[in-house]
Amino acid sequence: MRIGIVGASGAVGAEIIKILEERKFKVSSLSLFGSKRSAGKYLSFKKRKIRIQELKKESLKNFDLIFFSAGSDISKKFAHIATSSGAVVIDNSSAFRMDPEVPLIIPEINSKDIEKMGKNIIANPNCTTVISLMAIKPLLNLSPIKRVVATSFQSVSGAGARGIRELIENIEYSLKKGKKFKNIVFEKEIAFNVIPKIGNITSNLYSEEEMKLHNESRKILVDNKINFTATTVRVPVLRSHSISLNIEFNNNVAMENIIKALKKFPGLKVMNSSKNNTYPTPIDATNSDDCIVGRIRDDFTVKNGIALWVVGDQIRKGAALNAVQIAEFL
Amino acid sequence: MRIGIVGASGAVGAEIIKILEERKFKVSSLSLFGSKRSAGKYLSFKKRKIRIQELKKESLKNFDLIFFSAGSDISKKFAHIATSSGAVVIDNSSAFRMDPEVPLIIPEINSKDIEKMGKNIIANPNCTTVISLMAIKPLLNLSPIKRVVATSFQSVSGAGARGIRELIENIEYSLKKGKKFKNIVFEKEIAFNVIPKIGNITSNLYSEEEMKLHNESRKILVDNKINFTATTVRVPVLRSHSISLNIEFNNNVAMENIIKALKKFPGLKVMNSSKNNTYPTPIDATNSDDCIVGRIRDDFTVKNGIALWVVGDQIRKGAALNAVQIAEFL
Repeated sequence: MRIGIVGASGAVGAEIIKILEERKFKVSSLSLFGSKRSAGKYLSFKKRKIRIQELKKESLKNFDLIFFSAGSDISKKFAHIATSSGAVVIDNSSAFRMDPEVPLIIPEINSKDIEKMGKNIIANPNCTTVISLMAIKPLLNLSPIKRVVATSFQSVSGAGARGIRELIENIEYSLKKGKKFKNIVFEKEIAFNVIPKIGNITSNLYSEEEMKLHNESRKILVDNKINFTATTVRVPVLRSHSISLNIEFNNNVAMENIIKALKKFPGLKVMNSSKNNTYPTPIDATNSDDCIVGRIRDDFTVKNGIALWVVGDQIRKGAALNAVQIAEFL
Repeated sequence: MRIGIVGASGAVGAEIIKILEERKFKVSSLSLFGSKRSAGKYLSFKKRKIRIQELKKESLKNFDLIFFSAGSDISKKFAHIATSSGAVVIDNSSAFRMDPEVPLIIPEINSKDIEKMGKNIIANPNCTTVISLMAIKPLLNLSPIKRVVATSFQSVSGAGARGIRELIENIEYSLKKGKKFKNIVFEKEIAFNVIPKIGNITSNLYSEEEMKLHNESRKILVDNKINFTATTVRVPVLRSHSISLNIEFNNNVAMENIIKALKKFPGLKVMNSSKNNTYPTPIDATNSDDCIVGRIRDDFTVKNGIALWVVGDQIRKGAALNAVQIAEFL
């Protein structure tokens, strides 16, 4: 397959290259595209150095598959050029996720929806959606779910390589107590702080990130009765997101069956013992393909409710790995 | 008043000294007590240096009021000695909070319960309880509340001065990529990580910290119908806790009245505008007496529900300030 990656020097783009190599994806040629600023840099793939080219309209010919990971505006501008030249696009941005002709895929959950592709574009869901649904889907097989209260702890890698750099710099400034740090990527200081707003505030006063979890989940699960109320929060973690979930089922489900369903779901690991401090933290999931779930308990405050905690590597399963898994299904 | 502080060199003890001075509390004598390790050190109060004495059974005579802030074991061992020598104890530990003869006080909420003091001990609630209830109490005046889903983002100062040191050291190690950091205060690495367990896991699989919010809130509010399901999480923030709250009222309450009630509640500030990024973060509350609430919105996933976000300085309103406010009521 002739593969292109748009946004190759970003955190997710670089990880896609790594995962294509790790998983021995059949690549006959690999082309890397980036902004003017990153053009001319070299990245390694299978011990070869590949030069990043500046992305231009005429660049996207003669590809079978192009990964887009350079933000919504670039996807909107260039994805159709890529598909009209014959490529399939796997888009990591939010540009086409809610387009009814574009499948929104988590391979473990709805790989069969890939067939419904109408525009030669497949969308990769938001990272918090992917990681949350990896824990929720196995439970939906036990009972319909009425409502999920989700509170996220999102790492700075969600804002890309720039987000990671800003956290490190901000911390270095804070420890030196030098001149005041000027945040650019995040709206407020991220060192020793948490920021309870990701994306813009929408008309219902939820943030865009919060509404993505609700809207994307309903599309992926093909379920218009499930409801997500989210509070999405940026935390000073380098990579891996965590989500605290309070889930209300329609029916009574035995804890035993819940644990069993989680354990056998592909791509999900269970770390859940009240002894030995067995529960997952973001560091446990970092560089791991699996999402990890723990702190599973009956919620005594509501009928048919449970609470749990799930973590996943935002750059891998939350983005790059999921995109490559989609490509494998193609 | 002849005042003693047990645990004077801890994060909360040191803050009590500062607040007694700031608020011009009437102090005729101030004695400071600590462990063997901190005995001999000096702390400042009104420009005088006061020597920390090692705490012994015979130390606690001739006081009107003693603040205890050295953990549950010390309180259990020494508080009764202090009261039997005639002092009133304001205890910051969890030792006596659920004792029916010990009032559990947040002055803005239930100062009248101070009268019910049966053992000359008054308990200061858990920090997350104080900060959560500062946002919840004004709403309870509008409608009974059925259920609260709380997810906390708790700073390392909740584990005292040692917790603050461990975060800084852990970060310095991580940035240098030197030898592996060995965590002592926290169960797992806290730098660039979050830890979804505070205190031990109890028989219902909630943590002690999570059950404190439920149990202490019911006692303070004198309300056995309100339910709290919590997930309490340690985050790499130096001080100030944040709590994301999803609140379900019994009755329909207009958003306008909610905002009005929050705005006029003493000790609470509202930072809540979808324009201009007006919402509170832990850094905004640090060194502030007020708790701050924001991200207030109708929860579209449940009848009569709202979501909001509250932050408060864990060392001040979550501990030292609340204790001194109790003393002022005495």
